[in-house]
Amino acid sequence: MSDIDAHIPVSANLKQTLTPYLPPKGENHVTLTYAQSLDSRIAAKRDERTTISSEETKRMTHWLRAHHDGILVGVQTAIIDNPGLHCKSFTDEDYKLQEQSPQPIILDPQFRWEFKATKLACNAAHNGYKAPIVVTKSGYEIDTAKKFKKKGIEDFGGKVLMLDDFSWKSIFDALHNDCGLKSIMVEGGAHVIESMLEVGAFDSLVVTVGPVFLGRAGLEVSPKESVILDKVKWAAAERDSVMCAVQKKE
Amino acid sequence: MSDIDAHIPVSANLKQTLTPYLPPKGENHVTLTYAQSLDSRIAAKRDERTTISSEETKRMTHWLRAHHDGILVGVQTAIIDNPGLHCKSFTDEDYKLQEQSPQPIILDPQFRWEFKATKLACNAAHNGYKAPIVVTKSGYEIDTAKKFKKKGIEDFGGKVLMLDDFSWKSIFDALHNDCGLKSIMVEGGAHVIESMLEVGAFDSLVVTVGPVFLGRAGLEVSPKESVILDKVKWAAAERDSVMCAVQKKE
Repeated sequence: MSDIDAHIPVSANLKQTLTPYLPPKGENHVTLTYAQSLDSRIAAKRDERTTISSEETKRMTHWLRAHHDGILVGVQTAIIDNPGLHCKSFTDEDYKLQEQSPQPIILDPQFRWEFKATKLACNAAHNGYKAPIVVTKSGYEIDTAKKFKKKGIEDFGGKVLMLDDFSWKSIFDALHNDCGLKSIMVEGGAHVIESMLEVGAFDSLVVTVGPVFLGRAGLEVSPKESVILDKVKWAAAERDSVMCAVQKKE
Repeated sequence: MSDIDAHIPVSANLKQTLTPYLPPKGENHVTLTYAQSLDSRIAAKRDERTTISSEETKRMTHWLRAHHDGILVGVQTAIIDNPGLHCKSFTDEDYKLQEQSPQPIILDPQFRWEFKATKLACNAAHNGYKAPIVVTKSGYEIDTAKKFKKKGIEDFGGKVLMLDDFSWKSIFDALHNDCGLKSIMVEGGAHVIESMLEVGAFDSLVVTVGPVFLGRAGLEVSPKESVILDKVKWAAAERDSVMCAVQKKE
């Protein structure tokens, strides 16, 4: 961890609060994390990326990423945000935290995502980062266009993981056991977050609340039913508040 | 303030964070305050009272009340919650903070609320608390049932305030200038909060976020458009996080 600490300055207070919620070394662990407004919106509009985190909590996210083997987002987020899904150093822009950068994972049941010309493709081709794993539902093996897409990803060292059962348990089991990714951080979007909250498919939860209302037209996160959390700790950052918790076991 | 501090123990950290957002002595001031879940619900169901605050932040609310001249809720909240709207002492149940208890105000444009048999009526009749001010729209003066209701409130020393213009500005102007209530704390419900956020009808805002998701069926608070806040401070309480802010002036 000394390497991570040296390059991403996160306040001692935040680090101290977050540390008990980090994946235990060598154990399977899923962390669900996202930033929301006071009115529980993760974006101002459905198809728009909105920055809610401040500089400090953005750094915190990169610090969290560096503690995980894999980082997963839903296909909609991959398409709209075109994310890098790597660990960025904020103290020295030229230094890349490649070694700590987790394996990017795109959850894409219908295999809609195009790898070509994305930030992930650019990172894999030119910057030495890992090419993504795309998790799809089985049944697309015979589609020529999709076969071609699959090859494009594999050519860069990436992988297309086809699953019959698309439950969270099967997805994480496959990533843990077949792909060797013990700790996985999930960053969104709304559908992924809600569905993980609904079935309790996470070990720890880290929510950044930004002091803004995004309004009714924003992209909301609210599960179907109530979710009770356990071992809750808040850390007041400079501008945001960060909540850490684990799933309440009955 | 020594009297208040003696009887309602609120942590030094919370008090320190809240103090700059309290009404300045002798100035007109409106504080908007409420407790919400992570998914921005103030109740688990539309017509149900849900406790979101922990003991500590409940005490904080009573401590905040003791710093205001008036406390306002909407008619729907008055009907569903049957609130006492007074300052409760938590250290010594027999000791009543009557002197610091603010003037209860019910915002009730159609004058639907029944004073009779409410906690507010009981408090006024037996416990020495102030009878409420009901703020209504003008035009009900001739309705016999409503005249009777009005008399019932006035008999206990309360008041029915009739306004032609029911904008937030007119309501607070009348309460400040005609009723001598300089500092007013508004506690809800959802419609009142949203509409005050939308027009910026507050000087300071105190939101308690409880670490729970209440789910889609809950009573949501989200203004029509985005609202940017200024001078934001968070205080991590034992279980909840409390955000203080002021309205962002352009």
